[in-house]
Amino acid sequence: MNQTITGVKGFSAAAIACGIKQSGKPDLALLVSEVPATAAAVFTQNKVVGAPIIVGRSHITSHTLRACIINSGCANVCTGAEGVQNAREMCLLTAQEICQEGEALPIRSILPSSTGVIGHFLPMDKIRAGIPLVAAQLSNSVAAGNAFANGILTTDLVAKTAFTTLRIGGKKVTIAGCCKGSGMIAPNMATMLAYIATDVKIAPAVLNKTLKQVADQTFNCVTVDQHTSTSDTFAVLANGLAGNTKITGGSALAQFAKALYEVADALARQIAQDGEGATKLVEIWVKGAASLADAKKAAEAIANSALCKTALHGADPNWGRFVSAAGYSGAAMNPDSVACCIFAPKGKSYVVFKAGRPTPVKLVDVAKLMQGKHVAVEVDLGLGKVHTARVYTCDLSREYIAINADYHT
Amino acid sequence: MNQTITGVKGFSAAAIACGIKQSGKPDLALLVSEVPATAAAVFTQNKVVGAPIIVGRSHITSHTLRACIINSGCANVCTGAEGVQNAREMCLLTAQEICQEGEALPIRSILPSSTGVIGHFLPMDKIRAGIPLVAAQLSNSVAAGNAFANGILTTDLVAKTAFTTLRIGGKKVTIAGCCKGSGMIAPNMATMLAYIATDVKIAPAVLNKTLKQVADQTFNCVTVDQHTSTSDTFAVLANGLAGNTKITGGSALAQFAKALYEVADALARQIAQDGEGATKLVEIWVKGAASLADAKKAAEAIANSALCKTALHGADPNWGRFVSAAGYSGAAMNPDSVACCIFAPKGKSYVVFKAGRPTPVKLVDVAKLMQGKHVAVEVDLGLGKVHTARVYTCDLSREYIAINADYHT
Repeated sequence: MNQTITGVKGFSAAAIACGIKQSGKPDLALLVSEVPATAAAVFTQNKVVGAPIIVGRSHITSHTLRACIINSGCANVCTGAEGVQNAREMCLLTAQEICQEGEALPIRSILPSSTGVIGHFLPMDKIRAGIPLVAAQLSNSVAAGNAFANGILTTDLVAKTAFTTLRIGGKKVTIAGCCKGSGMIAPNMATMLAYIATDVKIAPAVLNKTLKQVADQTFNCVTVDQHTSTSDTFAVLANGLAGNTKITGGSALAQFAKALYEVADALARQIAQDGEGATKLVEIWVKGAASLADAKKAAEAIANSALCKTALHGADPNWGRFVSAAGYSGAAMNPDSVACCIFAPKGKSYVVFKAGRPTPVKLVDVAKLMQGKHVAVEVDLGLGKVHTARVYTCDLSREYIAINADYHT
Repeated sequence: MNQTITGVKGFSAAAIACGIKQSGKPDLALLVSEVPATAAAVFTQNKVVGAPIIVGRSHITSHTLRACIINSGCANVCTGAEGVQNAREMCLLTAQEICQEGEALPIRSILPSSTGVIGHFLPMDKIRAGIPLVAAQLSNSVAAGNAFANGILTTDLVAKTAFTTLRIGGKKVTIAGCCKGSGMIAPNMATMLAYIATDVKIAPAVLNKTLKQVADQTFNCVTVDQHTSTSDTFAVLANGLAGNTKITGGSALAQFAKALYEVADALARQIAQDGEGATKLVEIWVKGAASLADAKKAAEAIANSALCKTALHGADPNWGRFVSAAGYSGAAMNPDSVACCIFAPKGKSYVVFKAGRPTPVKLVDVAKLMQGKHVAVEVDLGLGKVHTARVYTCDLSREYIAINADYHT
């Protein structure tokens, strides 16, 4: 069974190495729906944005896409008017290659993305030569789906994919996605690059609203290094080939939204797990907050603290770092009622700080638990139990420094 | 000439190893003015604060201090009512030791500080035995001044001191200070621990206002790891022995404020330079901002970005990281007019990004400049030239990870 993005009815994909990356790894990827797909997307909130974001924001206003064209190895950011022209040309060349006989395919049907180093112009000679080659490889095979998932990567160590099926109104609906992201990860309204394909039939406005809700609960709750990228893009293409009655709300929408959330959440966790230099996946939970915004603020302060991330790396139960990070986050708290718990999801749990003082727990036991590959920290701000937030992150290791200091642009 | 803190008329100091630190290094330090000193202090804005902060905030309301008692190796934070009781007892024991015959010395004349690991109770047996011993060593010698500067350190590699003299109304005024801080450094209204002694005669309200202004421009512009400590304390003791006419404003205040700024600024730079794992001092300048708050926000985003700090460590002219950090800081900017310049203070300067696109500068030259021990980055937000901010920071190295992940609490 094809559980890649090409396992969704009507979608084909491909990726090739066109020579942008010096490593010779795949760097040009293409995802195509055989019929126009209802589409929605969110993009980075960084004020400095890549040229593909400027073009993508304009193209998505039509709520319809036929394809996504993505290059890795060069972000096409801080490249002025020439960069925007290059992003548009990528769309034009793609439209020319994939349009069917007699089809007038406007360039706004193509969503462009570029990821890699900032401040360099796209090598357009390689892109111009590459687009016909990648289009010629389009296929709905497992191999093509895997090639696409790998073609969008930069410093990622592994491809990140998720797949699910559900039945809506008696019809089988498939949702499959893949994403990339390892460094410069602190998405704000979107994530690095994530594409989800589905054959569901859904009204554009409903898809758009659902995508935004899902992004807020998944990709927007991941941080590797607190550095919101200039290229964040999360797009969903729904081509309607499942044959279900068009979703406009009600229980069908609830079903679809839950499934989309699960696919996006699985992708978001994979980003944190494959964070640059990461040796473990970390969940930061904050509860007892005065508001949802406060809960998220405190969780992000902990997840972004180098002191917290190095303690997690060293499996050091130095819980004062977690509590003090919540303390400077700006979130309201009652210091006398603050508590801290360190636990393994689906495993043991140790309360290390409660009612303003350390508990008699044996820290050597906590250290042992923290050596695991999946560790969670919970801080209760002591203001009641209503508002809770969860942020995915990873530890901070020497390897992160090696990746980001030793490699020269 | 004694340029340590005991070089100020009427101040004596001492430090001993009382056994709090397992390393056997000095961990109990005492600074005493022979007469009551007008005093002002600012403390951390973290909502989780150490017991000494609770006690110190109460004691400073009298605007008069005789002494500062500081232990390193244990922060006395997250220790509840017992911790507060312990901090008070430190003051009481100190007052008993230093009070002169016939002097009724209230415990509010003593400012307590503790620095080190969070979540452990002070070993009061060692403190109780140590305070008489450290008081017995009080001296105004250079050795005593140096001992004090070393006794307050934790992960710092070097003692941090500054000294200046000036003439106010024909009288020689001396200002000398020392501070500690290397990790958990992102001061907010104060810094880790800084003590400045002066023999100037000054009105309490004027000293308090001047100290706050100086803190904002110096210690509050330093970040090593973005983690605002629970113990930040910056105190100035002015014992009036210089014999000048009491400063209440005017040109005498301007002179004193400038000298105090220079001493505090020198100390602040030393904190950044000795940041955990640091190999270089970095200045981040932001200009052309819509407001001072925006300028500082953008400068802090750059100074706190692990991607920017690793690029600085690797001397990698990957300026897209600096520009994109300003972009997600929340500061207003005009992306089409943003510029980025990398320079050596008192040395060469390279504009790498201007008018929305990379300049033709040779990046290999910029990389060479970035290998220096003192590097500056300037980002112009492109909104005019009114508002500017400068933040001191350092690079992020493997050594930072070693210090914070390998050491176990």
